Amino acid sequence: MLGVAPVTPLLAQSAPVAAPVVSAPLTTLDAHRVVPVPTSVVAVTGAPFVFSASTAIVADGPADVMQTGEFLARMLRKSTALRLPVRRAGRAMAAPGNVLLLRVDTSALANVATAPGTRNEGYTLDITADTIRLVARTSAGLFWGVATLRQLLPWGIEAEHSALRLAPTVSVPSGRITDVPRFAWRGSMLDVARHFFTVDEVMQHIDLMALYKLNRLHLHLADDQGWRIVIASWPKLTQVGGSTEVGGASGGFYTKADYTDIVRYAAARHIVVVPEIDMPGHTNAAIAAYPRLGCSRPTPSIFGEGTQPAGVYTGIRVGWSALCPDKAITWRFVNDVVREIAAMTPGAYVHIGGDEVEVLSHKQYARFVERAQAIVAKYGKTMVGWEEVGKATLRPGSIAQLWRSDTALLAVKQGNQLIMSPGPRTYLDMKYTPTTEVGLRWAGYIELQTAYDWDPATYSPGLTESSILGVEAPLWSETIKNLNAAQYLLMPRLPALAEVGWSATAQRSWEGFRTRIAAHAPRWRLLGINYYPSPQVAWER
Amino acid sequence: MLGVAPVTPLLAQSAPVAAPVVSAPLTTLDAHRVVPVPTSVVAVTGAPFVFSASTAIVADGPADVMQTGEFLARMLRKSTALRLPVRRAGRAMAAPGNVLLLRVDTSALANVATAPGTRNEGYTLDITADTIRLVARTSAGLFWGVATLRQLLPWGIEAEHSALRLAPTVSVPSGRITDVPRFAWRGSMLDVARHFFTVDEVMQHIDLMALYKLNRLHLHLADDQGWRIVIASWPKLTQVGGSTEVGGASGGFYTKADYTDIVRYAAARHIVVVPEIDMPGHTNAAIAAYPRLGCSRPTPSIFGEGTQPAGVYTGIRVGWSALCPDKAITWRFVNDVVREIAAMTPGAYVHIGGDEVEVLSHKQYARFVERAQAIVAKYGKTMVGWEEVGKATLRPGSIAQLWRSDTALLAVKQGNQLIMSPGPRTYLDMKYTPTTEVGLRWAGYIELQTAYDWDPATYSPGLTESSILGVEAPLWSETIKNLNAAQYLLMPRLPALAEVGWSATAQRSWEGFRTRIAAHAPRWRLLGINYYPSPQVAWER
Repeated sequence: MLGVAPVTPLLAQSAPVAAPVVSAPLTTLDAHRVVPVPTSVVAVTGAPFVFSASTAIVADGPADVMQTGEFLARMLRKSTALRLPVRRAGRAMAAPGNVLLLRVDTSALANVATAPGTRNEGYTLDITADTIRLVARTSAGLFWGVATLRQLLPWGIEAEHSALRLAPTVSVPSGRITDVPRFAWRGSMLDVARHFFTVDEVMQHIDLMALYKLNRLHLHLADDQGWRIVIASWPKLTQVGGSTEVGGASGGFYTKADYTDIVRYAAARHIVVVPEIDMPGHTNAAIAAYPRLGCSRPTPSIFGEGTQPAGVYTGIRVGWSALCPDKAITWRFVNDVVREIAAMTPGAYVHIGGDEVEVLSHKQYARFVERAQAIVAKYGKTMVGWEEVGKATLRPGSIAQLWRSDTALLAVKQGNQLIMSPGPRTYLDMKYTPTTEVGLRWAGYIELQTAYDWDPATYSPGLTESSILGVEAPLWSETIKNLNAAQYLLMPRLPALAEVGWSATAQRSWEGFRTRIAAHAPRWRLLGINYYPSPQVAWER
Repeated sequence: MLGVAPVTPLLAQSAPVAAPVVSAPLTTLDAHRVVPVPTSVVAVTGAPFVFSASTAIVADGPADVMQTGEFLARMLRKSTALRLPVRRAGRAMAAPGNVLLLRVDTSALANVATAPGTRNEGYTLDITADTIRLVARTSAGLFWGVATLRQLLPWGIEAEHSALRLAPTVSVPSGRITDVPRFAWRGSMLDVARHFFTVDEVMQHIDLMALYKLNRLHLHLADDQGWRIVIASWPKLTQVGGSTEVGGASGGFYTKADYTDIVRYAAARHIVVVPEIDMPGHTNAAIAAYPRLGCSRPTPSIFGEGTQPAGVYTGIRVGWSALCPDKAITWRFVNDVVREIAAMTPGAYVHIGGDEVEVLSHKQYARFVERAQAIVAKYGKTMVGWEEVGKATLRPGSIAQLWRSDTALLAVKQGNQLIMSPGPRTYLDMKYTPTTEVGLRWAGYIELQTAYDWDPATYSPGLTESSILGVEAPLWSETIKNLNAAQYLLMPRLPALAEVGWSATAQRSWEGFRTRIAAHAPRWRLLGINYYPSPQVAWER
C-alpha cells in the first residue's frame, strides 16, 4: 500500500542543494597555500591527477599505512561522491594507473641532509596524470605527506557532505614535493588545569594540530587551580583538586579511559601526548586534596582573591605553592603519580614542570628535580621540565623547555637539548594587540608577524642548531574558558609556529607565509575553526 | 626552614597583569547596547549606582530568587574584586542603602498591557545612587532583569578573573526600565541528530540563550542520521542509531543523566527544554536499530550516497523514511518513547516532529499524528509539531510550528497557536551570502537585516497577534560539525531573532538594532563566542 513518493527537496527542512562556494583547485603546483612550506616544490607542465570513481588508494607498508589510506579515503568520501577503495599493495600493483600509492620505503630520502631523526618524518610526493606516489621512511612521514596533499586539494574537500560543495572534479596538478622537517619536536601545549577542556575539545585541537604537522601535544594536567587526571592510588586529587578552575566554575577531570581515548586519537594522527604534572610548585590542587603534601601556607591566608573553602584556589597568582621536599609522603606521592602516568602513556616523555618555585631554597629545588628525574627514569620515560630544571644535574637525554631564557643555558651547558618556547614569541595566551579582549600581556603583545618572524637557533646567545630539539607553543588558560576562545588566540599563530618548527629558514619568509596562510581562512570557516582575522594578512573570502 | 618568598610576577608563566581593555561603563542609561531592546527606558539625571565592597544583594521572594542573586554575585566575583553577600530580605532590609534588591511581587506590572502570560516574564529595574531595585512577578522575570543589568555593566564584567580587566569601578547609571516580552515562546533549536553536540556544547549554547532572554531550547533528538537519547525499553536506538552522523563520524548520544544535567542547567536559567522525537518520518536511525518499525525501503537501495552497513544513513536526503503506521510494534514504540521522554522532561512540551512525510498517504499521516497526540496527552504533556500536523485534528492547546507557511493555517483555523519559524527568516543554517562556507541555501540567503527586519504577526496572510505563541530559530546541522561552526551561523542572527520575539514592533528598528548589537562583539570575544562579522554592522573593536 505504501509507495516511495518523489522527494520534494525545495520544501525540505534540509534540501541537498549544492552550495555555490568558490573552491577552485590549484592549476599549477607551487608552494602557494601549503603551510608549513615544504623543503622543495617542483612544478611540472603536464596534466593534473584527477580523482575519479576508478581511482584506488594502494597501501604498501606496515599495517598503519592502511589506516592512513583509510584516513584519506574517509576525507574524500565525506565531501565528494568518491568512494575510493584502499587496497594492499601487490594485487593492486597490477592495476593500470589512476592510483594513489602510499609506500613506506626505509631507504627513502637517504640523500637528504637533516637533523638526526627528522628524516623519518619526511616524505616525497610525486604527482603525475595517472599516479600520485607518496613515499616515506615511516608511517608518520606518510601521514604528513597526506596532510600536504590535503592542502593541495580545494578547501571544499573539508565540507561535511558532497551535496554541500560545488567543485565538480577533484584534481591535483603535476609536480614533485620533497619535504623534511627541521626539528623533531613540534609541540602545542594546552593548559587544561586553569580551565578544563573536554575530551571532545582536546580531540578538536588534535585535528587542528594534524593539519599543520605538529607532533607533540603537551597537556598541562595539574596546577594550583586544578588536577585533571585520575590517579587511582590518590583518589582525592580529582575528587577535590578536579572540582575547581579559574573563575570559580566546576572544573572537571579525565578518567583513565578518557585519557586513553585522547592518546589513541592523537596516535592515529602520529601525535605524541606529553603529560605534565607540574611539581614541586604549582601544586595547590594536590595540596588541597592532601594537605600533608604541602609546605606552602594555606591559600586563604595568602591572598584574598580566588580562595575557596577547603584550600582550593581559583585565582591566577603563581609561585607560592610547593610540595614539601623533605617528607616521605611527598615521595610516595611523586612515585605513585609518575608510575600511573607512565603506565597510561605510550609516549616516551613525562613532563615534571619544575617552574616558578619561589618557596624552596636552590638546594631543595635541585634535589627535588634530581629525585623526580630518577623516578621518571625508573618508569622508563624521558624527563621533560621547564628551563629551571637546568639548575639540577640532568641525565643525558633529559629535555629542558626554554620559556624565560635566562636559565635555559644551564641545561645546554650540561649537553641537554631545549624545546624553544620563548614567551615573547610562542606564548599564545598573550594578546595580539592592546585591544584583544582575551589573553594576558606580561610577555608582550604577539601579532602574527611576531609569532612567525624569528629563528629558534639564533633566539638567544649560546644556542646552536644541535642544542635545539624543537619548538612548542604553550597556551595558558587563565583567561580562556572554552575552545572558541582558545582558537581565537591559537589561530593563525599556531600555524606560524608550525612553520617555524618544520621549515628551514632558507625556505620560509614572512611575506611568503602571510600570502599562503591567507588561503586557509575558508578552510577554517568550513571546519568550524575560530580565528583572529589579523590585519597583517589579506584573508581570502 | 621554608619561608614564603615574594612572588615575582613579571617572570611568572602567568602573571596577573591587568589587561588594558577598553571596557567603559555607560554614562547615561539609554537603550544603547541592550538587546532585546526593552519596552521602556527612562534615564534620570543623578549619580550612578556604584558597586562597592559594602554592596549587598538582597533576595525577597521564593527560594530560587536566592539562586538568581547567587548567579549575579558569581558573575561579579569572577571578574571583579567584589564579593557581594546574598541575603534574604528582612534582616537586610534594615541595611542602609547600597543594596541590590531582587524582589518577587505578584502585583508588579499589573497596569502593563501584554499578551496572556508574558507579563510573568517582565520586570522593572529602578536604578538610583544608593539602590538597584529589580522587581518582577516571577523568578523568571527577575532573571531576565539580571540579564538586562548584565548588558548595562561594562563588557569587561565577562572576564574570567578580576586581574584581567581594567575598569576600576563597576557602576550603572540612574534610571528606570520597564520591560515585558511580546511573545511567551522565544526559542532556539539545535539539530543534535545530524551532527551530535556534546553536553558541554549544549550548555555553552544555553549560556548564549540566557544572554538574550530566549526561554525555549528545542532539541531535535532523532532523525534519519542519528538517535541521540537513551530509551531504556529500546536500547538499540542509541546502540545502533546513536553511532552515526552526517559525514560518517561516530555520532554520540545522551544518557538519561546527561539529559537531566542539560534540563537542570537550562532550568536554572529559566529556559525550558523541548525534546523532539521526529515521527513518523525522519526515522531511519530508529528503523536501522529496529527494522520491523519501518515501512520505508531500506536506505541502500534508495541512494548511493550516505548509506552504511546495517541500514544506517549519513547522507542528507529527506522525506523517504517512515515508521509503519499500521503495525502494533510501531505504537508500542511510540508509547514507550513518549513515556520515557515525558518522564525525564519537567517542561510541558513534547515535540513529535511530523514534517516531510512523503511516503504515507494523507489519511495515514493524519491518523498517525492524532494517535501520537493522544499518547503525548496521556503522559501529561502538550504536543508540538511542525506545521504539517495541522492536517490532523488537533487538540486545544496543541502547538504547530510554521516553517514553510503553506500548511500552517490549517492549525490556526482549528484555533491552535503557531510558533513562527519561517525558513527565509529564521532558519539559521542558511548561508548569510553566496560566499558563506558553511550552511545551506534552499530557503534563501539570510543576512543579518533579513533575519531581523520582519514581523511575525504580518509574515503571512491569515495570521493575527493572538494566533502566534512566539518565534523560534532552528539550526539544522547537515553542514555544522561543531559549536564553533554553529555559532558562526547563530551569531549575530540569534540575538536578532530574540529581539523579534521579545520587543514590540513599536520599540524596535533595524537601525537601532544594528547600532546596539555592534557593542556586543567585545563581549562575545571575551566570552569565547564565535560570530560572523556581518558587513551590515559597524562592529565595536
